[in-house]
Amino acid sequence: MSIQPVLIDGAWRASCGSKTFQALNPATQTALPDVYPVSPLSEIEAAVQSAARAAREVSHWPGERFARFLERYAERIESRAAELVSLANQETALPAEPRLARAELPRTTSQLRQAAAAAREGSWLRPIIDTKANIRSVFGPIGPVVVFGPNNFPFAFNGISGGDFAAAVAAGNPVIAKGHSSHPGTTRLFAEEAAHAARETEMPAGFVQLLYRTDHADGERLVSHPLVGATGYTGARETGLVLKAAADRAGKPIYLELSSINPVFILPGALSERASTIADEFTTSCLMGTGQFCTNPGLIFLVAGPEADAFLAAVREKFGAAPVGTLLGEGVLQHLERNVAALRAAGAELVAGGQTGGGKGVSYRNTLLRVSGDKFLAGARELQTEAFGNSSLFVFARDAAQLKELAVVLDGNLTGTVYSATDGRDDALYQQIEPALRGRVGRLLNDKMPTGVAVSPAMNHGGPYPATGHPGFTAVGLPASIRRFTALHCYDNVRPERLPAELRA
Amino acid sequence: MSIQPVLIDGAWRASCGSKTFQALNPATQTALPDVYPVSPLSEIEAAVQSAARAAREVSHWPGERFARFLERYAERIESRAAELVSLANQETALPAEPRLARAELPRTTSQLRQAAAAAREGSWLRPIIDTKANIRSVFGPIGPVVVFGPNNFPFAFNGISGGDFAAAVAAGNPVIAKGHSSHPGTTRLFAEEAAHAARETEMPAGFVQLLYRTDHADGERLVSHPLVGATGYTGARETGLVLKAAADRAGKPIYLELSSINPVFILPGALSERASTIADEFTTSCLMGTGQFCTNPGLIFLVAGPEADAFLAAVREKFGAAPVGTLLGEGVLQHLERNVAALRAAGAELVAGGQTGGGKGVSYRNTLLRVSGDKFLAGARELQTEAFGNSSLFVFARDAAQLKELAVVLDGNLTGTVYSATDGRDDALYQQIEPALRGRVGRLLNDKMPTGVAVSPAMNHGGPYPATGHPGFTAVGLPASIRRFTALHCYDNVRPERLPAELRA
Repeated sequence: MSIQPVLIDGAWRASCGSKTFQALNPATQTALPDVYPVSPLSEIEAAVQSAARAAREVSHWPGERFARFLERYAERIESRAAELVSLANQETALPAEPRLARAELPRTTSQLRQAAAAAREGSWLRPIIDTKANIRSVFGPIGPVVVFGPNNFPFAFNGISGGDFAAAVAAGNPVIAKGHSSHPGTTRLFAEEAAHAARETEMPAGFVQLLYRTDHADGERLVSHPLVGATGYTGARETGLVLKAAADRAGKPIYLELSSINPVFILPGALSERASTIADEFTTSCLMGTGQFCTNPGLIFLVAGPEADAFLAAVREKFGAAPVGTLLGEGVLQHLERNVAALRAAGAELVAGGQTGGGKGVSYRNTLLRVSGDKFLAGARELQTEAFGNSSLFVFARDAAQLKELAVVLDGNLTGTVYSATDGRDDALYQQIEPALRGRVGRLLNDKMPTGVAVSPAMNHGGPYPATGHPGFTAVGLPASIRRFTALHCYDNVRPERLPAELRA
Repeated sequence: MSIQPVLIDGAWRASCGSKTFQALNPATQTALPDVYPVSPLSEIEAAVQSAARAAREVSHWPGERFARFLERYAERIESRAAELVSLANQETALPAEPRLARAELPRTTSQLRQAAAAAREGSWLRPIIDTKANIRSVFGPIGPVVVFGPNNFPFAFNGISGGDFAAAVAAGNPVIAKGHSSHPGTTRLFAEEAAHAARETEMPAGFVQLLYRTDHADGERLVSHPLVGATGYTGARETGLVLKAAADRAGKPIYLELSSINPVFILPGALSERASTIADEFTTSCLMGTGQFCTNPGLIFLVAGPEADAFLAAVREKFGAAPVGTLLGEGVLQHLERNVAALRAAGAELVAGGQTGGGKGVSYRNTLLRVSGDKFLAGARELQTEAFGNSSLFVFARDAAQLKELAVVLDGNLTGTVYSATDGRDDALYQQIEPALRGRVGRLLNDKMPTGVAVSPAMNHGGPYPATGHPGFTAVGLPASIRRFTALHCYDNVRPERLPAELRA
């Protein structure tokens, strides 16, 4: 049995660890053939030391150098697209077409190219020159960046090809990628192409490295290592909070995308006006990708009454008629089972689904729950438990006034949505809800489900804790996402020839 | 005995707490007459609730409103300048002239006016409009900000008048100021003027509030309160780290300025060329304000040899001849005694001073220590203990190559300085030291001591941990310092009339 090597210091080398793991095909529930290593601490240390050397070597390189690497890498990914799509499909059960091949892969290469453009164009540097005081400042790289990718986007958020990777490289930082254990093969293919592209564009040895897995305690050591600049983590809240605590203790920035249930307020006028359209939009959004999106609408607020009842009945029918998708893996299923049970224990009633099975392989029936506004206010913490997957909770407010109270008790989320009537009759209520909702979400939407996260310079894929660790940063959208992986460098009375090029004015 | 009231929800009210404290005059070592309360949790809760109401009320106000308040406040401070200077002098022993009256007070009102200009001009908002995707984003206020001011700048960093206060208000955030216990009277005078200015400019009741002191556990509750947006803290490392841990656990941003020893590398050519000038500059910088600056040069690196010995001898003579200043208080003295002892225990030898007394009131002799580069490398952690005050440690490197090794083991600092020869003979060595030093400091200086922190848009008064909590932010310099107290607000498909003005394009 051969064990896949790790990518450290510019070379694929056999891991010195003794533990291994294999990925499972969630559709067939069988193990995939390749065996991957769990990297021990010595391997982590070697990666960090190499990354630190690389960081020093590239510290004065122009953005053009990083842009060339990112672009070459995007080309290489495209030349291996069929293999990537096939393996990712086996490892995640996400549909090859259109999801992986026509949506996520182009999104990934587009992100890399947008990051290249941002590196070349350099607006993220924000140079400030005070000639009178002879003081200048500019943003610069923060140092080696560790990226933990999630299970649900094997391409676009992968630790070695996704948005965090692209943003960290654009700022001139070496990346140590930690692959997600559910799709190590996909990650390996990316890493092979990244390594080739790095060599072709003459990046230093430790600029791009890959570890498939570490023990939890070693993961904590990695994010708090004195030579690490920052960490990007997308994934489950529990693991993320353990890493955050370790990084925080060491004073190391860590950017997290942890969990979000994405509240949607459907105001009474909108419901009267276009219930059927909204039911369609909601069903599509909630079940897309078997609900496994960070921006899945998991919490719907309505004012109780016959129209709300009819709306829920219509959605229930659609949920029953829709096919049940395959989940990303056993872990997602267990999490979903546990958290639907937690919502029920907190007072939510089951309206549809709530049982394992119903689809191919690892699956869980399309699920709807409901609870009253009074109960939600009384158990706001428990009733905001994220049931990641094809499940959503409807909250029936006593009246319009209670909708506002409900907005006030919301946790931090990536998104918050309000559907309102087009004729203005919901406008006064909108004005009451908006200030509370605005402060609790990164992206506020009108009349549109939140699932899609456009790679737009204006996007904010972020939000207050516990959605992320800081409400001032976005994980998607260039050049804004680069800002996370930068440090502010000030030059006071530094001789002109020693200044970075952009400060020599 | 009457106890000073606290400023909560727009009114001066008697504290409901039972504990009190008084400030000491460090020059006379006697208690000052006024008695101040320690606020209990119920008072903290009242302040937070009021601040949260104020935050919602002003959430859509234009920058002009905050600018008017800041400007009126600056005027009121000026009209009460004599009283402020006199009381601050009694509470801190900092010289009334020129320090308090001619340097720090004008700096403070200038900061408030610069913050007003930044609020009015609005460049910190950074609106981004993607008309094609119909997505827009803009920075907005983060929510109520708690500001803990330090002991060493009773005006310019005071929780209710300093840089953090000005930056938080400019972004439209209410402030809950926590005064420093060493100068409560100064803080009270500011708060009186702030309250007047707030009323005159029609700010809501809880926009500016003041608590003099809390128990430590209550301070932790304050920074981690669900309704608090962020905290700014300048002060001792120990207390700051306790607050940081509490805020981190709650996912609340906290900006810290904790400690910095500000390494200065004097390269061999510079020493040959102008040792006497550098000795003068160093002595002035190190003893100014009795060394009680965050940017005090506390660590000097030289290459061992006769010139370095002569340099140290010259500095020793100057330190002996210079008057010994009064320290800010007993706490500073005890910290200095303890940490000079810690440096000696770690292998540093005393060259001058090292004893309590020598000046008026609370004082400690002007102190110099020395250690070899080998010992520094072996005990780098202990030998980077901050001895805040009129003390500095000289490190004698074996040779030029060791200087580079020394730069690599440095902790994060606010500043790092290199003196080099004007004729180019140090340039190769500079190039070797710079990449390591650059990554460890917020502000890199050439040929100039770091003590002065100009209020320049290009300033970075920040740096990697443990100098601060994040290397991407500055506490001084407008509009850059505002960025800490903002959240990123994205609007996706939001109807035009509901957008903030700056996104309606």
